[in-house]
Amino acid sequence: MNIDFKKSNLNDKGFDSVYENLSSLLPYVHNLLVNKKGKGNNFLGWIDLPLHIQKLLKDINETATYIQKKCEILVVIGIGGSYLGTKAVIESLSHHFNSLQNYRKYPLILFAGQTMSEDYISDLLEILNEKEYALAVISKSGTTTEPAIAFRILKNHIESKYGKAEAKNRIVTITDKEKGALKTLSVQEGYKTYVVPDDVGGRYSVLTSVGLLPIAVAGIDIVKLVNGACLMRNDVLQENENNIAWKYAAIRNALLQNGKSIELMVNYSPSLNSFSEWWKQLYGESEGKNGKGLFPAAVSNTTDLHSLGQYIQDGARLMFETTLHVEMSKSNISIPYDKENTDDLNYLCEKTLTYINHQAEKGTQVAHLSGDVPQITISIEKLDEENIGKLIYFFEFACGLSGYLLGINPFDQPGVEAYKKNMFRLLGKD
Amino acid sequence: MNIDFKKSNLNDKGFDSVYENLSSLLPYVHNLLVNKKGKGNNFLGWIDLPLHIQKLLKDINETATYIQKKCEILVVIGIGGSYLGTKAVIESLSHHFNSLQNYRKYPLILFAGQTMSEDYISDLLEILNEKEYALAVISKSGTTTEPAIAFRILKNHIESKYGKAEAKNRIVTITDKEKGALKTLSVQEGYKTYVVPDDVGGRYSVLTSVGLLPIAVAGIDIVKLVNGACLMRNDVLQENENNIAWKYAAIRNALLQNGKSIELMVNYSPSLNSFSEWWKQLYGESEGKNGKGLFPAAVSNTTDLHSLGQYIQDGARLMFETTLHVEMSKSNISIPYDKENTDDLNYLCEKTLTYINHQAEKGTQVAHLSGDVPQITISIEKLDEENIGKLIYFFEFACGLSGYLLGINPFDQPGVEAYKKNMFRLLGKD
Repeated sequence: MNIDFKKSNLNDKGFDSVYENLSSLLPYVHNLLVNKKGKGNNFLGWIDLPLHIQKLLKDINETATYIQKKCEILVVIGIGGSYLGTKAVIESLSHHFNSLQNYRKYPLILFAGQTMSEDYISDLLEILNEKEYALAVISKSGTTTEPAIAFRILKNHIESKYGKAEAKNRIVTITDKEKGALKTLSVQEGYKTYVVPDDVGGRYSVLTSVGLLPIAVAGIDIVKLVNGACLMRNDVLQENENNIAWKYAAIRNALLQNGKSIELMVNYSPSLNSFSEWWKQLYGESEGKNGKGLFPAAVSNTTDLHSLGQYIQDGARLMFETTLHVEMSKSNISIPYDKENTDDLNYLCEKTLTYINHQAEKGTQVAHLSGDVPQITISIEKLDEENIGKLIYFFEFACGLSGYLLGINPFDQPGVEAYKKNMFRLLGKD
Repeated sequence: MNIDFKKSNLNDKGFDSVYENLSSLLPYVHNLLVNKKGKGNNFLGWIDLPLHIQKLLKDINETATYIQKKCEILVVIGIGGSYLGTKAVIESLSHHFNSLQNYRKYPLILFAGQTMSEDYISDLLEILNEKEYALAVISKSGTTTEPAIAFRILKNHIESKYGKAEAKNRIVTITDKEKGALKTLSVQEGYKTYVVPDDVGGRYSVLTSVGLLPIAVAGIDIVKLVNGACLMRNDVLQENENNIAWKYAAIRNALLQNGKSIELMVNYSPSLNSFSEWWKQLYGESEGKNGKGLFPAAVSNTTDLHSLGQYIQDGARLMFETTLHVEMSKSNISIPYDKENTDDLNYLCEKTLTYINHQAEKGTQVAHLSGDVPQITISIEKLDEENIGKLIYFFEFACGLSGYLLGINPFDQPGVEAYKKNMFRLLGKD
């Protein structure tokens, strides 16, 4: 994995000196993070966790095998960090049309508790009437409104479909180690239960049981995934200026200080769209406070070159782009020869789609650079467990550094309470 | 359908006078648009088109019935406006888990030509090996790279699966009325062909055959959809200050002039996510030029209240929100009583999910308003054909007004060419 940066030719005045200033702070903020001396230091469990979960991985894989044998569908009930990381990893590593395969090897993962749309839940129940399923319920407290509501409805459904005794075999909970409504219920009912660590926040939880259980059920190798994170941990713990997390943190903060207000996460593969959603929570929720922070948005190309492309090229000069470059594809499809050549594409004969996609990516970066959109590129070899594990750890670690550079606590989310307070009042909760 | 606006309490200094100025310009820009006197006036066919397509709708419905009888899947090959509008309408009006229903009444609509991901196309071909399918190929010229490549590959596939003769019965093209590579091929091969009107741009084309054919195949009533557009046309052609398109155009431009740079399209139903993507192209591509325009982004709540919610509440003060409020849901699910009440949710007993979702929406708007995020709300009665048709025409018409208020040509997209030029050079095209 590596990182490349091209600053804009048009508007790079302030960049170099700002970048140098920020770079000189990196040894300091690295120390804050690694030695747990900064704000939010009670939420740094994720830094070392991947090193110490071999036993947990084995246990999770056993539960996953049990669910795989029993079910066609696992419904994951969770919101925020209990939803986005799981979805990101599964979609980046799965068949694009998973739900349409005639012979699926592993259960489909569907989600609930991430929306209160009545039609969504109604449609979900209709599907669950017809299919064998299990539930994974994820909530630290058990009282976050959306997942709690979804679980109450689905608990009713699964108990009336299978009976209370069998339902217990089909419910796994992931919650606090000792307290809270979901923990209490889990003990009462005797559900298989995993622990949400106290020192890992929601948006950093994908490599805990929160993400790993459903990811394993989907047939993804969680040992390799966590191993990727361990490999990246070795890299980004190095205190030197070649550290790619240092570079990413410094570049994006320098661009912010130099007048950019939006960071666009760019992919060239639709399977990475949910990864961008995970990244948006990680950076938006970590940094969007005290009136600060880059606004995180995402595009998927070349699809969005025919949508937001015009704006990025030529609209208000608000953004820079961070492209996730993937070197190799899994499959092999080349442009076939056509003797009529009505579509004038024979010049691409025998070129692979990935080759063409890469040229589109290069061409786009040159075009956007000339339109004053600076370009960060983060490259990985391919979409597999190890590389996704690396990417996750990289973005998590860089987010901690970046938040400290910005001068905020990257591990809290006080602003999330505001809507809840109003909602509870409107709902007449005491 | 109606529109409501609440300006922020914290930072409304300049707003009122800017809004008045812009409002006073509306009769003028309305006249530019309706009487085709402004920039881009050769692309205004969409204004009257819904009134005059009864014959076309009948023809499309016949073709749709033919495809429905023959196929489990229709692959729509298209990008930009030939992709986003279709996806938006189908997802807003379909079952959330369409692909998982045991007994599906209508074909599934899948997409190609909107991405050059090799793995995506490879996975698609794998599915098409197993299923009965047809192709709808949408391209004005036939030489837009992404759909042209996808069609070359899929033409090969469908001809080797069904033989050349039967393949012809399974390919419908939507292209220029007389010229271009796809038109030439369509005549040669004798494909059933529909016309992309000369005077309707891609992002305005969802209510032409471009969107209507695949939407009809998906089982959606296109007569009602177009009728919704006609009803809205009556409303927004009225020259007076109660015109909701006038209001939307003036408010968003006033907020832009008053310092906001991002417009967030907000929904509370995941089935509207693709509608937001369509809106992003419509406004981003229409207005993002000459260094101007609001940056269009989207969130889906309450999902994203646990992601970007923190940023919106408390990060850099860049945005205002436009919420699509939907009054009624199709289904009926209430919170069941639980005598244990471990989750403490009995206070919500017998409340519907939609009621709770609406309280979350209200609570969010109050919270964000107090965080200096002005709130536009566009309300519709329910998600059905007529209301979606209304919404489409409303946003299209308001976009024309809004672009003229901004002082740009809302109907061109010169910036989209930049990446193509570079890509062709890199691919060695003459």
